[in-house]
Amino acid sequence: MSKKPLILVTNDDGISAPGIRTLIEVMKDLGDVVVVAPDSPQSGMGHAITINSTLHLERVVIDSGKQPEYSCSGTPADCVKLAVNEILDRRPDLCVSGINHGSNSSINVIYSGTMSAALEAGIEGIPAIGFSLLNYNYNADFKASKPFVKQIVKNVLKNGLPKDVVLNVNIPNLKRSQIKGVKICRQARANWEEEFDKRKTPQGKDYYWLTGKFVNLDKGEDTDEWALENGYVSVVPVQFDLTAHHCIQQLNTWNFND
Amino acid sequence: MSKKPLILVTNDDGISAPGIRTLIEVMKDLGDVVVVAPDSPQSGMGHAITINSTLHLERVVIDSGKQPEYSCSGTPADCVKLAVNEILDRRPDLCVSGINHGSNSSINVIYSGTMSAALEAGIEGIPAIGFSLLNYNYNADFKASKPFVKQIVKNVLKNGLPKDVVLNVNIPNLKRSQIKGVKICRQARANWEEEFDKRKTPQGKDYYWLTGKFVNLDKGEDTDEWALENGYVSVVPVQFDLTAHHCIQQLNTWNFND
Repeated sequence: MSKKPLILVTNDDGISAPGIRTLIEVMKDLGDVVVVAPDSPQSGMGHAITINSTLHLERVVIDSGKQPEYSCSGTPADCVKLAVNEILDRRPDLCVSGINHGSNSSINVIYSGTMSAALEAGIEGIPAIGFSLLNYNYNADFKASKPFVKQIVKNVLKNGLPKDVVLNVNIPNLKRSQIKGVKICRQARANWEEEFDKRKTPQGKDYYWLTGKFVNLDKGEDTDEWALENGYVSVVPVQFDLTAHHCIQQLNTWNFND
Repeated sequence: MSKKPLILVTNDDGISAPGIRTLIEVMKDLGDVVVVAPDSPQSGMGHAITINSTLHLERVVIDSGKQPEYSCSGTPADCVKLAVNEILDRRPDLCVSGINHGSNSSINVIYSGTMSAALEAGIEGIPAIGFSLLNYNYNADFKASKPFVKQIVKNVLKNGLPKDVVLNVNIPNLKRSQIKGVKICRQARANWEEEFDKRKTPQGKDYYWLTGKFVNLDKGEDTDEWALENGYVSVVPVQFDLTAHHCIQQLNTWNFND
């Protein structure tokens, strides 16, 4: 049996996206790779799971590598669940998700299919990392990302990750020589100012497209947004305990018995 | 113009579900109500948003109340975005989501469409609460929930909520006389042990249904699971800054330059 780490690779742009092909290529140097990824793009799926519908898996061959690959009809979180429970014959040592075509920094972590796969693995106790490049194009150039992805994964394989924590890694859309290094950050407080594009169907009924402008409300120099704007790869440790522990005392002063 | 608070009501079980009808009924005593909710069930949608498809809104009349109601083709998070940006003529003073048919305690917060609506409102700076009853049946009895929903909402309207925090409220499936009161809690560390139900299509191909068993790994008496098991309504303050701040120092000792 192989002594190499078993690495599960997934994403949310779909199994044939250039981002995941790059991630697979880098991971093959570091371990035994199995790919389980959505059969179609799942961006913006958040932490959706498929509970009222069936799930389908298909063994596929996308490139010439020897890694087993499975295309899945479900969401990124479904892919991780199916991989761990139905496909892999041992627990993976690591789950990596991405490389996403587009940013998942700041508040985007909460809408991100890429990060939902990493969080799902984390919930199951598997060290996990989501990677994203700040370039939405299908033909984005992932070359400069490779050494950073490799270095971060090597650290995780060597050091492990703190309990119940996964990493959210975002990579600026720059040349290798322009990237200044890696920065550990906190999530910036930002949001989307929605602007719905309201149109009419040929039958005259209103409908909407969701568009919007990303607004960073946080000027802190310890945030992922600052790091990315200043040429760094951002690494945010992310937890799935959403409790606002600092508020518990205050809420205990409320009166629920009137 | 009305001096009453403007309350946006949504859910993830769909606009005609008994849970949201109960919530509307209670909210009408406390403010001016507008309902924007999915036209079909959206359970397990996590924080999904609709970015690659169109969104449709329809003005509907479900019961005899005077509250305006809109049925939306999108996810719970889409409903909040559309309500705030396209429907309401002023910012709501509160957004309430639910009452969900089924628990959103513990790790379920991350898969929950109910809570994604509350979180979306929170991200937009609107005080928000998600309510869930621990009964998955369509015909669940929401009577005992009403006084607790009302009391919690009254507290939020009076005190506001801490910045960037929303509430996740779960209600045990008990009679009014059996419920001991309200407890402020932290999210229990739990997960789902998946068991996929593997079947064959009539054509002989494998497919899967996601099933699973909820496993509480956390024996703490300050958790939502403990409160619910012991007859209390659980209130967890929930934040959307997912940064694991306690890990930043440790990760800063890693070596990214080998």
